[in-house]
Amino acid sequence: MAEQRPLQGRKLGDRRVVVDRPHARYFRYLGPGVLEAKLEAQAPRTPYQRRMASVRGILFGRPLSSAADLTERLPKWKALPVFSSDVMSSVAYATGAMMLILAGAGTDTFKYVLGLSVVVVALLVIVTFSYRQTIRAYPNGGGSYIVAHANLGVLAGLTAAGSLLTDYVLTVAVSVSSGVQALYSAFPWIQQQGLAVPLIALSILLVMIVNLRGLRESGTLFASPTYIFIGSMLLLIGVGVLRSLTGNLPQASEVQPLSGVATENMGIFLLCKAFANGCSAMTGTEAVANGVPAFKPVEWKNAQQTMIIMATLLGIMFMGTSYLAIQVGAHPAGFQGGGESVLSQVGRTVFGPGLMYYVLQFSTMGILILAANTSFADFPRLSSILARDGFFPRQFALRGERLAFNSGIVALALISIGLVVAFGGSTDRLIGLYAIGVFTSFTLSQSGMVRHWFVERGSGWRRSAFINGVGAVVTGVVVVVIAISKFDQGVWMIIIVVPILIAMMLFIKHEYDLEGIGLDVQPDVVFGPPHRRQRVVVVAQTMSRAVVQAVKVGETMGEEVQLVHVTLDPGEGERFRERVERQLPGVRVVLVESPYRALVRPFVRYLEVSQAEDPDRITVVLLPEHLPRHWWDRILYNQNVHRIRAALVGRKDFVVLDTPYRRGM
Amino acid sequence: MAEQRPLQGRKLGDRRVVVDRPHARYFRYLGPGVLEAKLEAQAPRTPYQRRMASVRGILFGRPLSSAADLTERLPKWKALPVFSSDVMSSVAYATGAMMLILAGAGTDTFKYVLGLSVVVVALLVIVTFSYRQTIRAYPNGGGSYIVAHANLGVLAGLTAAGSLLTDYVLTVAVSVSSGVQALYSAFPWIQQQGLAVPLIALSILLVMIVNLRGLRESGTLFASPTYIFIGSMLLLIGVGVLRSLTGNLPQASEVQPLSGVATENMGIFLLCKAFANGCSAMTGTEAVANGVPAFKPVEWKNAQQTMIIMATLLGIMFMGTSYLAIQVGAHPAGFQGGGESVLSQVGRTVFGPGLMYYVLQFSTMGILILAANTSFADFPRLSSILARDGFFPRQFALRGERLAFNSGIVALALISIGLVVAFGGSTDRLIGLYAIGVFTSFTLSQSGMVRHWFVERGSGWRRSAFINGVGAVVTGVVVVVIAISKFDQGVWMIIIVVPILIAMMLFIKHEYDLEGIGLDVQPDVVFGPPHRRQRVVVVAQTMSRAVVQAVKVGETMGEEVQLVHVTLDPGEGERFRERVERQLPGVRVVLVESPYRALVRPFVRYLEVSQAEDPDRITVVLLPEHLPRHWWDRILYNQNVHRIRAALVGRKDFVVLDTPYRRGM
Repeated sequence: MAEQRPLQGRKLGDRRVVVDRPHARYFRYLGPGVLEAKLEAQAPRTPYQRRMASVRGILFGRPLSSAADLTERLPKWKALPVFSSDVMSSVAYATGAMMLILAGAGTDTFKYVLGLSVVVVALLVIVTFSYRQTIRAYPNGGGSYIVAHANLGVLAGLTAAGSLLTDYVLTVAVSVSSGVQALYSAFPWIQQQGLAVPLIALSILLVMIVNLRGLRESGTLFASPTYIFIGSMLLLIGVGVLRSLTGNLPQASEVQPLSGVATENMGIFLLCKAFANGCSAMTGTEAVANGVPAFKPVEWKNAQQTMIIMATLLGIMFMGTSYLAIQVGAHPAGFQGGGESVLSQVGRTVFGPGLMYYVLQFSTMGILILAANTSFADFPRLSSILARDGFFPRQFALRGERLAFNSGIVALALISIGLVVAFGGSTDRLIGLYAIGVFTSFTLSQSGMVRHWFVERGSGWRRSAFINGVGAVVTGVVVVVIAISKFDQGVWMIIIVVPILIAMMLFIKHEYDLEGIGLDVQPDVVFGPPHRRQRVVVVAQTMSRAVVQAVKVGETMGEEVQLVHVTLDPGEGERFRERVERQLPGVRVVLVESPYRALVRPFVRYLEVSQAEDPDRITVVLLPEHLPRHWWDRILYNQNVHRIRAALVGRKDFVVLDTPYRRGM
Repeated sequence: MAEQRPLQGRKLGDRRVVVDRPHARYFRYLGPGVLEAKLEAQAPRTPYQRRMASVRGILFGRPLSSAADLTERLPKWKALPVFSSDVMSSVAYATGAMMLILAGAGTDTFKYVLGLSVVVVALLVIVTFSYRQTIRAYPNGGGSYIVAHANLGVLAGLTAAGSLLTDYVLTVAVSVSSGVQALYSAFPWIQQQGLAVPLIALSILLVMIVNLRGLRESGTLFASPTYIFIGSMLLLIGVGVLRSLTGNLPQASEVQPLSGVATENMGIFLLCKAFANGCSAMTGTEAVANGVPAFKPVEWKNAQQTMIIMATLLGIMFMGTSYLAIQVGAHPAGFQGGGESVLSQVGRTVFGPGLMYYVLQFSTMGILILAANTSFADFPRLSSILARDGFFPRQFALRGERLAFNSGIVALALISIGLVVAFGGSTDRLIGLYAIGVFTSFTLSQSGMVRHWFVERGSGWRRSAFINGVGAVVTGVVVVVIAISKFDQGVWMIIIVVPILIAMMLFIKHEYDLEGIGLDVQPDVVFGPPHRRQRVVVVAQTMSRAVVQAVKVGETMGEEVQLVHVTLDPGEGERFRERVERQLPGVRVVLVESPYRALVRPFVRYLEVSQAEDPDRITVVLLPEHLPRHWWDRILYNQNVHRIRAALVGRKDFVVLDTPYRRGM
């Protein structure tokens, strides 16, 4: 018997304990038949629960009330790092990713980098203006899924959702891997010692824990590295451009030679591939639009301003990096997850190998790991919306103690760690993969917006529809370019994974709907009191306290309790009958001898046959179930009760009641 | 709703169906409140069950009634192959195993083989006479476990049991592997094609299926290869000895050279190691003593005679093989699971490469695979005895449709296949390991017998005690010799595994005892009718048919049903209350608002607190449980019901009832 232990001196928000009302420690009375549970009502009881609770307290902080939700809003200066680290961090690899493709046709093709960067920035401007409108139109969060679902239907919505979910996973894997690459660009021994993969996994777990603590702390923690990165980048570009204009910029030294020689010819196809890689700079642009409700009021206005600031900074940093990379003659790092990053080469050349270079490298690592954080904000939010709509298991819609969507956060961490381990930490190959998901969702979202304006036809709707229309067409073209040019480089995986995800979500919806039909009660039926007679049957294989309990329960339900015993040995059966009739007077024992040693089916047949004798009553079957104390005890007891239950539940004329019994604790 | 389908024309033993008694198809009335289930009562109903049943029928035959047990007894001519294939089959490898050790000190040491063989046969004689006495004293089966447990206590018994269980597994792995070796000694391509391991696994599965069919068929099936093997061996020895005496026996040709040169010095230690390997010839000697009840009456007499015949044949074949191996100059096969076996070289030389050689090889393979069968008879029998005594999970004591101990048979097959796969089919290294288990159990069994005679002191007890005493001392010395000489060759594994097994069995016993204490009902208590008032509480999170069913059940148990709803959202809670009070008149709804989003603990606290208000009554908690139709649906529904149940079951003043609901089938 678990005793009510005194409270272990935990600090609680509410201390107005009135001593003469024993309930008052756990509940607050709000009215007749309405209580509010205090935090104390879910306080741990057993030593084990208490230990778990204190571990959770250290990792995640104390539980937050649902009412605390509003205070978890972000001011703009915190929202910028939370939502923009993904998009800004891509500066660290996007230029290199373009150069790597071009290098296939020799290093003199690097001159195209600047032109391609201009195209990417132009795309960024179009998409930013498109999303500015979405933010205004969907102030409760206008992710691609919501916009596409609302305007273009379920399948479009799920396609956007599937693309985004895939992308979030890829973002976490690639960003954190690149962050650790920034570290071992400066300290090569980390990679040589084989510490890269464990370090990546650890970083992902760290980001996970921070996110399980809830949004506000995430904002505070993530603000400084982001601002240091932005500062270092702007300084880098400023100093670099100044030195370049004054003819004072040296060539990059200590550059590792490119392995292999030019194997491809320069052409439009190669340019398209390089462009596709450059598009990875734009992943995460949608984050702000997704997260409008996390901003302080007026939400949409703050979100729009944040988006503009973000896009501006991104444009400057991306163009600057590409320009300087050409000026210093940087070479892209090799494909196989090794080598120095382009940004590191630029930084080393511009700043020299001093303090500022290391600040740049560390803040690059910081922002890349924080980039993962954007996905940790978006993936759980999207999956909670999907769960609310029935496309994801319901637990994804539940908020944890700290108001975070724990299931989504944990799922994202585990899947992306799996991806990192599977690719041995060389996730460079994945960079090219996630542009297609991002642009698919851009296209669907903006097509949805076009429809939205056509349906709504508010003031200035033609202008709005035009802006979104341009966005939709341009991003749609990019999707096709990426799909064709990168098909053989793994994009086919995305083209397989996304439909599988969609099918899965449709299947989950189907299952929920089906069960809903089976369980739903018409809202206008009034259920009267029970009107059929019932006989009560207890199944018993041994004389145990579990059986005695079931008989006692049965006696409160009907005049007579019948006890059915299936026996393999007639002699044993008679002894059992004698014992039951002596110890439980009034109980009628039926012995079923089973010469073929089956227990479950003869019992079920007997119930059917005897029910058929008097079809006007129903049969209530009480199943004394012995609950093992430990999971390992399960293999020590056979599971006949479960088989009987499975055979009878859901059948007309039968009601099955499990009467679990466990010896006193 | 599963309908009662007409019987699908199955042939049944009992056809006296009386049409006007609907029960008569399934049950036979034996008296008031006593029915006997006919085979029809466990006939399959659903198409899936029917498919499964017909597969089982093909593999295992039709179910046997428990009353058929007596007819499953074995005449001596069938008992000999069933119980002796293990011990006889060791002729196929024991000589080679000795030579392999000696080869370490050069091939001229082979002269010691004959001497060692004499020692082994002397041991065999001693052990046989010892067991003759055990058979007489324990006519219900006198395995080492029973004898040691009864006379020397639990720990000695479990040590014997653990050693034997380990041995049975090793026997299956080694015998079947050696059997397949006999095959690829004749057809080397089998091994070259990598077919050895799959072939071994398949053979084990085949033996498993045959055993699941029950003992009688096993006897019939296994008789012929055993007798062919015995015949071929006797012919081989006869022809070989004759040719040898007439100076007409050539040297073995085509012998593969020994890899490596002499690396060890001849000495007593090497002789001991060789002797230890030779002792593997005696594994399985105990089989007859274990299986006394399987003989036809008079059981003990038939068993004794069978044992003598078996030992005589073994002695002749083992000595003969060793003698001929020296005469033809056979070399042992290499350690690594390849090469031609010694017996194959002898056969090829004596018979020449004609028909008789192939008959010998095939029957060797046959008996080696059948040797596994002895383990398949012994392991399940021993584990059923252990299960009856509470040292093994109870399902090991249940007989299957064909009266075989299915759990033990399947467990043995899976573990030994695992061993074969782990060792890649080269189980030669395991041969030396199982002698120690056998001799440990010999020693314990015979020490137990000595104690038995001292306690019983019947006529001639001194003589009997002396015989068993000599056996115990001699086999005990062998155990020490093996443990020391082969310690570094893997015997340490056995010395680790057996204690782990013993600890496991003691733990299982402990768990059963503990649960027994918790569940046991004093046999003299009379339980009166329920005397405490009860209130009925239903927990409900949604309005569903499962909840309606729980309320209806609750209404038959008490005047008023209280429905408790834990809500995260006060507005939703009020709507729920309104709906319940409208649709289920008379039900009192209590809302518990949970601002910290916990569901289970606030509910449990509420029940505790309200129970404490009126401690004279008990609280009956009805848990509407929605049973998913498929296993994969489980992840779609959260398992709060299980957590509530776990929190309340076993507590004073609470009775928990699961009311499972599944939508109609």
